[in-house]
Amino acid sequence: MKKILCKGFSFSGVVSGLKKNGQKDLGLIYSEVPASVAGVFTRNRVQAAPVLVDRERIKKGLCRAVIVNSGSANCCTGDQGLKDAISEARLAAYELDISEELVLVASTGVIGKPLALDKIKAAVPELIKSLSPDGINDFAQAIMTTDTVPKIISRNGNIGGSGFNITGVAKGAGMICPDMATMLCFVCTDATVSPDFLKEVLASSVEKSFNRITIDGDTSTNDTVLVMANGMSGAVVGSRADKTYFQELLDEVLKELAKMVVKDGEGATKLVDIIVKGTASGSDAEKIAKTIANSSLVKTALFGEDANWGRILAAAGRSGAEFDPGLVDIYFDDVLMVRNGMGCGDAAEIEATKVLKKPELSITVDLKTGDGKASVLTCDFSIDYVKINADYRS
Amino acid sequence: MKKILCKGFSFSGVVSGLKKNGQKDLGLIYSEVPASVAGVFTRNRVQAAPVLVDRERIKKGLCRAVIVNSGSANCCTGDQGLKDAISEARLAAYELDISEELVLVASTGVIGKPLALDKIKAAVPELIKSLSPDGINDFAQAIMTTDTVPKIISRNGNIGGSGFNITGVAKGAGMICPDMATMLCFVCTDATVSPDFLKEVLASSVEKSFNRITIDGDTSTNDTVLVMANGMSGAVVGSRADKTYFQELLDEVLKELAKMVVKDGEGATKLVDIIVKGTASGSDAEKIAKTIANSSLVKTALFGEDANWGRILAAAGRSGAEFDPGLVDIYFDDVLMVRNGMGCGDAAEIEATKVLKKPELSITVDLKTGDGKASVLTCDFSIDYVKINADYRS
Repeated sequence: MKKILCKGFSFSGVVSGLKKNGQKDLGLIYSEVPASVAGVFTRNRVQAAPVLVDRERIKKGLCRAVIVNSGSANCCTGDQGLKDAISEARLAAYELDISEELVLVASTGVIGKPLALDKIKAAVPELIKSLSPDGINDFAQAIMTTDTVPKIISRNGNIGGSGFNITGVAKGAGMICPDMATMLCFVCTDATVSPDFLKEVLASSVEKSFNRITIDGDTSTNDTVLVMANGMSGAVVGSRADKTYFQELLDEVLKELAKMVVKDGEGATKLVDIIVKGTASGSDAEKIAKTIANSSLVKTALFGEDANWGRILAAAGRSGAEFDPGLVDIYFDDVLMVRNGMGCGDAAEIEATKVLKKPELSITVDLKTGDGKASVLTCDFSIDYVKINADYRS
Repeated sequence: MKKILCKGFSFSGVVSGLKKNGQKDLGLIYSEVPASVAGVFTRNRVQAAPVLVDRERIKKGLCRAVIVNSGSANCCTGDQGLKDAISEARLAAYELDISEELVLVASTGVIGKPLALDKIKAAVPELIKSLSPDGINDFAQAIMTTDTVPKIISRNGNIGGSGFNITGVAKGAGMICPDMATMLCFVCTDATVSPDFLKEVLASSVEKSFNRITIDGDTSTNDTVLVMANGMSGAVVGSRADKTYFQELLDEVLKELAKMVVKDGEGATKLVDIIVKGTASGSDAEKIAKTIANSSLVKTALFGEDANWGRILAAAGRSGAEFDPGLVDIYFDDVLMVRNGMGCGDAAEIEATKVLKKPELSITVDLKTGDGKASVLTCDFSIDYVKINADYRS
């Protein structure tokens, strides 16, 4: 991939042995100077130890490094898990010679397995030695679990003549559902952004990106999105116009990453945008979109490239939203398949089936009642999804 | 199967050609005399034409026949669908020479396909000619879609020296979720039961049976449970004790049928009872049990015979119920796998994995906080589930 320059940040990723397959499983992000930081975390009642540690540390609004391991979620690991998460951060802090309070930590992998801290300890010196401004690919690989591709998005901006960069990296392919900040995502920017504004802008971007995707309806115990701003580019996000501009760039980065996550969904062969409009309220549209996007029957029909619109309508019907089934129109991309609650016949189905053969498509459900609208990105439900998840721990 | 005698009822099932595979697809239940009738129907906002017809007709509390077709759900078929459902009932009424208002109708199959009424019309004479007190197996086969086995349960009772019988037949293997009367189920009894009590007892039994099962979290547009009581045995359900007794027998019939439905779930290899206890309230227990029972990650792990308890805990955590993750115990049958939110180690896992190899097992989640409890029957999520549902209409 093309070279990214987010000033003052360096990255690394190494093999510590936490993953059984011998691939990279320990990553580090380091900022030369303390950076503003904001985070959004899982809303699951069961929360992993690193999430609990970060929630406390992030209150200061400052951070210099994030250490991340895959291969173990360090969740449901009790008091020992908490100690281990703190130790994991401390190992990095010690070698980097910075305050351990400025180090955040994230984990992903199997739940309930104690963290093999000895392996991490042995690997930290190499992890730090390999830090490099060009190391983001190694970092992206180190945080992958069932992901098949690393996920990195970068955008350049300019404020008052000072160029700056926003670079985000994410992992996630399963336990993905739109009710929270989903999976792991780390965003670095060399712009100057106050911690308060960073918090505000992150919450807004997450709502438009990671909270609008689903793979399997399961929400994780470890979901974490962090954004760090170290100011080293000289660009200062100060005025209201700057903030709007920065928000737009961050939205773009998170939306692209969210899209990459769904596209790489476990076993997924298709990326499908479920668009619902014409509802009495926005929350009705959201209920319908999420229910369709999570329906196993809709998702298996998508895998089978079957324009089985009855399942879409049945899912809408059980969403809890109010609507008149006799008014519903359904489109596959631009092909009108259902008009006023009834199928448009064989010719429409032939066209809709063509759309379903595409790797990316949209399904629009128009309730023709009000101005409410919402959309959720989802993927299909394949035989490989079952294979991956029946064998995950073996 | 052994001979069932539910006095005054006869049954039949024939091939009309609605199913592409040439199997039986049209069934009839007939009572020699008008029977008390009660019904419970889908709560999906999208409701099939036969459901709309039955909802009206059942208000009278009397019924003599039910005609049922598979191969087409007659749902999302507009005004024509309503006319077709009424015509379907009328065809049976005409040949049986009874009032069409005393005939109910049910359909199951693909949504959005117009009902091929000509095929039904051609088959009705044979359907009526083959009516027989022994015809229940033919009827059970005629209402199957992706079911692999017919589902019939029969119980004998005795009130004041008069013997009577309750016989139920059900179909359902997909689009099954516990938020309503689920799938098609027809129950006949030759006891005398008033329509009002029949309504009451049915609602109570459904709550304990069909509303406690899930296969895929999708609720259908055609769900219908009907119970008919024709009084021909001479047994009269009159006193309070009789009612309790009758309720118990009906509970047994519906619970057994519900269990058969999950066991025959699309692609299912395992029947799993998710038991949640120790919550602050019953509704908390229900939320947790349903979320676990519908989790794709839990269900694929069950298919993989993997004691992946982290997924069970993560599902509980996103259920919306309040609990302390540090108090949770999880059992596979009697094997304690998780104690106070943490795994019990390799020895426990070896034992738990043995339990997971069984075709029927229970998972108990104890929150150790209060007296709330609930249970939901579910099945695993297999490669065959995806195959069946990717190809359903082709």
